[in-house]
Amino acid sequence: MGIGAYAADSEREALLDYFERRVALHLDRLAAHSAEGEGVTRLLYSPAWLAGQRAAKDMMERGGLVTRFDEVGNLFGRLQGKRGTGTILTGSHIDTVVNGGKYDGAYGVAAGIAALEYLKQSYGTPNRSLEVVSLCEEEGSRFPLAYWGSGSIAGERSFSQIQELEDDNGVAFSEAMSECGFGEGSAAPARRTDIHAFIELHVEQGTVLESRNMQIGIVEAIVGQRRMNVEIIGEANHAGTTPMLLRRDALEGAAAMIGLLRQEALRKGAPLVATVGRLLTLPNVPNVVAGQVSFTVDVRHSDSAALDEFCSWLAGSFRLLAEERGLAFRCEEWFREEPVPMHAGMGSRLDAICSDLGIGAMRMVSGAGHDAQMMGRVCPSAMLFVPSRRGISHSPEEYTAPRELAVGALALATLLYQLGYEEGRS
Amino acid sequence: MGIGAYAADSEREALLDYFERRVALHLDRLAAHSAEGEGVTRLLYSPAWLAGQRAAKDMMERGGLVTRFDEVGNLFGRLQGKRGTGTILTGSHIDTVVNGGKYDGAYGVAAGIAALEYLKQSYGTPNRSLEVVSLCEEEGSRFPLAYWGSGSIAGERSFSQIQELEDDNGVAFSEAMSECGFGEGSAAPARRTDIHAFIELHVEQGTVLESRNMQIGIVEAIVGQRRMNVEIIGEANHAGTTPMLLRRDALEGAAAMIGLLRQEALRKGAPLVATVGRLLTLPNVPNVVAGQVSFTVDVRHSDSAALDEFCSWLAGSFRLLAEERGLAFRCEEWFREEPVPMHAGMGSRLDAICSDLGIGAMRMVSGAGHDAQMMGRVCPSAMLFVPSRRGISHSPEEYTAPRELAVGALALATLLYQLGYEEGRS
Repeated sequence: MGIGAYAADSEREALLDYFERRVALHLDRLAAHSAEGEGVTRLLYSPAWLAGQRAAKDMMERGGLVTRFDEVGNLFGRLQGKRGTGTILTGSHIDTVVNGGKYDGAYGVAAGIAALEYLKQSYGTPNRSLEVVSLCEEEGSRFPLAYWGSGSIAGERSFSQIQELEDDNGVAFSEAMSECGFGEGSAAPARRTDIHAFIELHVEQGTVLESRNMQIGIVEAIVGQRRMNVEIIGEANHAGTTPMLLRRDALEGAAAMIGLLRQEALRKGAPLVATVGRLLTLPNVPNVVAGQVSFTVDVRHSDSAALDEFCSWLAGSFRLLAEERGLAFRCEEWFREEPVPMHAGMGSRLDAICSDLGIGAMRMVSGAGHDAQMMGRVCPSAMLFVPSRRGISHSPEEYTAPRELAVGALALATLLYQLGYEEGRS
Repeated sequence: MGIGAYAADSEREALLDYFERRVALHLDRLAAHSAEGEGVTRLLYSPAWLAGQRAAKDMMERGGLVTRFDEVGNLFGRLQGKRGTGTILTGSHIDTVVNGGKYDGAYGVAAGIAALEYLKQSYGTPNRSLEVVSLCEEEGSRFPLAYWGSGSIAGERSFSQIQELEDDNGVAFSEAMSECGFGEGSAAPARRTDIHAFIELHVEQGTVLESRNMQIGIVEAIVGQRRMNVEIIGEANHAGTTPMLLRRDALEGAAAMIGLLRQEALRKGAPLVATVGRLLTLPNVPNVVAGQVSFTVDVRHSDSAALDEFCSWLAGSFRLLAEERGLAFRCEEWFREEPVPMHAGMGSRLDAICSDLGIGAMRMVSGAGHDAQMMGRVCPSAMLFVPSRRGISHSPEEYTAPRELAVGALALATLLYQLGYEEGRS
């Protein structure tokens, strides 16, 4: 059975069976390492995290890969190629949110190991070196910094950024890192310039694939984000003695803004999404008209200009709604991330692979941030999604069926085969 | 100069000068007793409260009134009449919210003392006994129970209701009461059945009088209230990966309800007011679509049927908005208070008094609860408002001009004169 020759139906089913078993095995081994509590909890540099990385190292080595950690704790399993330069890297992150699922991040690591062990076993030494990485951190769950693993590789994160950081228990980032044996100079630097291409396989964490009955999402871009904080100041008044027309009700103003936001986001349509997820009211008691409300707006789109246009429309429209109501108004952007396009050539190649393998695939944007957005800034990067049941993620209920996981691994292995074995002869 | 004969312009001005001085004097003496902090804080059965009641007792006695406390700590200053039965009672409450103003409650006590001392001095013994009361509690600021003073007099409150109550520091209601020397059997029972009429003078705590440039509000009714809790359950989803059309956003649903509520309340018009003052969102983070929102609705109107009709419209309309959005919805009433009409005869009499005195007066409803609503259930009751600057209350910034306070006191004294001296011959 041959990935390179594109499997016949029976060969494809046998390959899917194989990947189903191997991915499940690796995933279960990783999920066994978790802090106490529901679901999976592997916070950066925690005992469960370290045990998870050690388990991944063991899996990689059993698969015939040469392992190493870098100084921040990213773990690599390498299948050395015939030519000396340019590495094809796949993988995702090992850390989780608190009480997360077993698929987010870990799936990309497990499938990467399964793909590389299969390729080594079936095809021996590749032309280009292939590596799978178990990135140390992506979620930003323990410390207020995300993409520490991929960002360090891409040069978007540095030790200077973590000097002041502490977790909720007051443990310093650097102290936690050093307790696990990592830190500046503890191993080879994290920054890499030899990556020829990066491919990340991940669960969708949304319902797009499920609702369209698709097996694979080929990501065209990871959306950019703008986050704003809106402050509305009215007048806290007695709920009984203040006639409706004499009120300056900050919560009613906020409600009008939320309604308008949804209406306009629906009108603009996908890939734009806009969310008010956090809202605080003062004094927040039943019998006082709200004097003050603050809320966040999270806006995402794969196009930077479209993002800016929407946010500027929003600030202007909100201001009008505030003025109509005699409310003071302030809108401040506090987070800004540009969209990161995925590599067009690899996207087309994945289209062809899915089509040849009879896999239902669609192009989509990623509304969530991923390690591929760090890598995409420094090397050609691709991202593949498999369905998430009911879109549930960051929850013990996160689930993707074993066969769906296998389909993703097969597509990944096929792409790695093309990049590593069919090409790259020096 | 004579209240009974209706003062000529010069006499009225002299009377107003007099009441301006006396009310200011009494108010300042009361305001001197406060816990530390901004504004005035006299929580029930606190040292500041006890000092305030003792000061009021001293003021009453200096005015020639015979004082006594009842068993809950209500303080009465009595001017004995010629006939044995039927007492005309005026007054308000001495307790305050935390960091409140110096007028709320205390004004009715200070003006009542000023009126009675003036009447005694000018006209001697009345036909009917006149009393001023400094009610122990109205605000519900220290313990989760309000109208303890007037409710005890009216038989709407009893010792059985306070057995389990504690303040925020875990001090039992009964313990705090007993430390001030009060409690069941400590003095005469609070319940009274000899009240012929009750008149409460109070600051408006709203902007109706100010906005219409009126000096006196003659309260026709104290509004009834319905308070509801609305629970909306949608689905907490990733703010990036969930397309707008696939969301069940509880906060967006709540926003639509708040908008509709305001629109309908404006359409119905005064005296209806409807307020969403408290709103909680879960999980309340910027990048997650709100899965759950709960909010309160406070609806007030002087007509019970209008209240019920509005609330039932509201529950039905909210349900439709929830269903359109695929949101689960629950609406529960948790507080219900019927409107209390004030006495029509006393209202007409106050109209005539104000007209004769050249005082700009208007009929209005009280959107706030007051002791008069307890008293109004058991005896003919009247309520008078004076303006509150910018409607600010429950704040150190609460303010009513001295002349406005004097106008209220003059109207009160005139009504007391009519009821106590002109009438009631046995």
